[in-house]
Amino acid sequence: MKPFSPPARVLLGPGPSECAPEVLAALTRPTLGHLDPQFLALMDEVRAGLRTALRTQNELCFPVSGTGTAGMETVLVNLLEPGDAALIGVAGYFGARLAEIARRAGAKVTEVPGEWGRALAPEALRRAAGGKRFALVAVVHGETSTGVCTELAPMRALADELGALLVADCVTTLGGARLEVDAWGLDGVYSGTQKCLAAPCGLAPVTLSARALEKLAARKTPVQSWYLDMALVKAYWGEQRAYHHTAPIQNIYALHEALRLLHEEGLEARWKRHETHARALWAGLAALGLECLVPEAERLFPLTAVRVPAAVDELAVRRFLLERYSLEIGGGLGALKGKIWRIGLMGAGSKRANVELVLSALRAALAAQGWKAAGDPLPAVHAAYA
Amino acid sequence: MKPFSPPARVLLGPGPSECAPEVLAALTRPTLGHLDPQFLALMDEVRAGLRTALRTQNELCFPVSGTGTAGMETVLVNLLEPGDAALIGVAGYFGARLAEIARRAGAKVTEVPGEWGRALAPEALRRAAGGKRFALVAVVHGETSTGVCTELAPMRALADELGALLVADCVTTLGGARLEVDAWGLDGVYSGTQKCLAAPCGLAPVTLSARALEKLAARKTPVQSWYLDMALVKAYWGEQRAYHHTAPIQNIYALHEALRLLHEEGLEARWKRHETHARALWAGLAALGLECLVPEAERLFPLTAVRVPAAVDELAVRRFLLERYSLEIGGGLGALKGKIWRIGLMGAGSKRANVELVLSALRAALAAQGWKAAGDPLPAVHAAYA
Repeated sequence: MKPFSPPARVLLGPGPSECAPEVLAALTRPTLGHLDPQFLALMDEVRAGLRTALRTQNELCFPVSGTGTAGMETVLVNLLEPGDAALIGVAGYFGARLAEIARRAGAKVTEVPGEWGRALAPEALRRAAGGKRFALVAVVHGETSTGVCTELAPMRALADELGALLVADCVTTLGGARLEVDAWGLDGVYSGTQKCLAAPCGLAPVTLSARALEKLAARKTPVQSWYLDMALVKAYWGEQRAYHHTAPIQNIYALHEALRLLHEEGLEARWKRHETHARALWAGLAALGLECLVPEAERLFPLTAVRVPAAVDELAVRRFLLERYSLEIGGGLGALKGKIWRIGLMGAGSKRANVELVLSALRAALAAQGWKAAGDPLPAVHAAYA
Repeated sequence: MKPFSPPARVLLGPGPSECAPEVLAALTRPTLGHLDPQFLALMDEVRAGLRTALRTQNELCFPVSGTGTAGMETVLVNLLEPGDAALIGVAGYFGARLAEIARRAGAKVTEVPGEWGRALAPEALRRAAGGKRFALVAVVHGETSTGVCTELAPMRALADELGALLVADCVTTLGGARLEVDAWGLDGVYSGTQKCLAAPCGLAPVTLSARALEKLAARKTPVQSWYLDMALVKAYWGEQRAYHHTAPIQNIYALHEALRLLHEEGLEARWKRHETHARALWAGLAALGLECLVPEAERLFPLTAVRVPAAVDELAVRRFLLERYSLEIGGGLGALKGKIWRIGLMGAGSKRANVELVLSALRAALAAQGWKAAGDPLPAVHAAYA
């Protein structure tokens, strides 16, 4: 085995995004034990920093020791008991994943299918509920597979009508788009660190409301996952400091530093930055003659889905970008495989230089396939920034 | 929030251990996408390196995206179906955890209690089995809570008699004590990265035998955890490269580097190093007049449990070491809380300087409590190294 020397990539796919250099440096700080008093103090800062980032006062707010999908599984297996009815919006790959994990938790799942590339309307969920009671309603805030942002605030009234807890997948939105856990009445939220937080992958911020904790306390069956059992994990992150598993120390250093940078920039400023660069990208794509999958009002700022033009080889374009520019963008998932590209402008990667680079590179890649651009994208981009 | 500046600690507890400096540096390599061709090639090197470290030819051999406990849960929830009978040796905290996780997987668990501080005898498991058939037998190789090493090779015949798969917890032994997955006939093995591999916490190497994969393929029920479902995760780590979840790229860089260092040193040499420093520590402890919990023949090399002498305040000693020496050792867990210290000499931390430092520091801490040492430990240690 030889030491690995990865090439420097411009990471403009659906994540991982580029880590901020300060965050990478934080990974190398000296390891502390997971019960060291100084590490315990750091954990408290991470919890406080996450609460601010999630706009919540929830007591339970900390990173789970796994990736975003572990966060999804954590929220579902803790808040669902076998036989519970769950109403789940499925308008993309990650909605489908929610439904699958809920089924494996023993829930009776009612899937509410939505068009891939459109936001879910509360009315569609209401119709599917058919007046029945549900233990849980789950939707994806930023659907990473389609680039859609579904409004969460209107889901609260629906969840109240059904007597349900409201769960939201915020993997792609935390730190990159407005997210108001308390104001929107979200009961269970999870995210990941490798997207708009610009930290390495490996942790899943999770928060549960007081209402969700009541459900947890009233469970009649043990949580099927011991590793993700919030009643046990919160005893470590909370005042008891009871050993549960060895925390990923280095990743928590990195998350702490990422949160520090987030709050230094300011949460609203961070959201605005993601919006500004997304809008500039959209202007450039339109000028090139490329079409976004999602109507503008429903688009996610951190991630844009672009339709692959007819007669263009989707994979060949991504290969061209990787080989000629060392630039990564994403392809489609599931039903959208081969049909879209996904361009992420997330965290440290959400910046003007990347917008202009990806447009310039896409233009070259498409020209190499004989596709004729409608026009020069850069004047439109420059105008968007003006 | 301010940047966090942890103090440099000498980590001689039950883990995390000190990361090798090359491994910490590897964490900061440029992030690649989880489907980048260069990252996929790295994954193959990690699988090969782990196979060598585990002495196995198993096709399924890769790190799960979580800590050692996630590895434990992975092996159990994949190899057990609801109603399966599991025979589990419980002679420590981690044996008890195995039993609890197996119960949450729906298994009918027969616990075989053993003395905390002694190895489990196959005969005790055989008696408890009472001639019945079992789907799975699970034991802990290196019981981190007691410092005991249980021989695994004799468990194979027992598992065969019962028609069972054989699972072993190797969190504390991988890279620090002889471990022969294929020669010993182990079907499911998991470990962690933050002990004898000297890498950051956050990944759990897992391997499953062909027999275990047959059981997986013949399951009648889905694995309750989608995140840890090996049939899905192996499609990403294997030839299909099917996206499942975003791999923790930086942690995998670190594991790759840790495996590179392991193979550069040589596996047998690494085991021998852990043995040499453990034996020197034991000689010093005996000279001081401190007693080990475990009979010498059953002791784990990477981790030594030391009885707290009568009238000594266990916690005050650990505080003294942390405050005066910035040195961490562990306390006892569960039934051994307050009764033992746990001294880890793991990975990069398994070295002569640490042996002499911890003995010298312990001597000072005990003297501060008015405890009289039997004698000077250092001549015994020097003799052990001679």
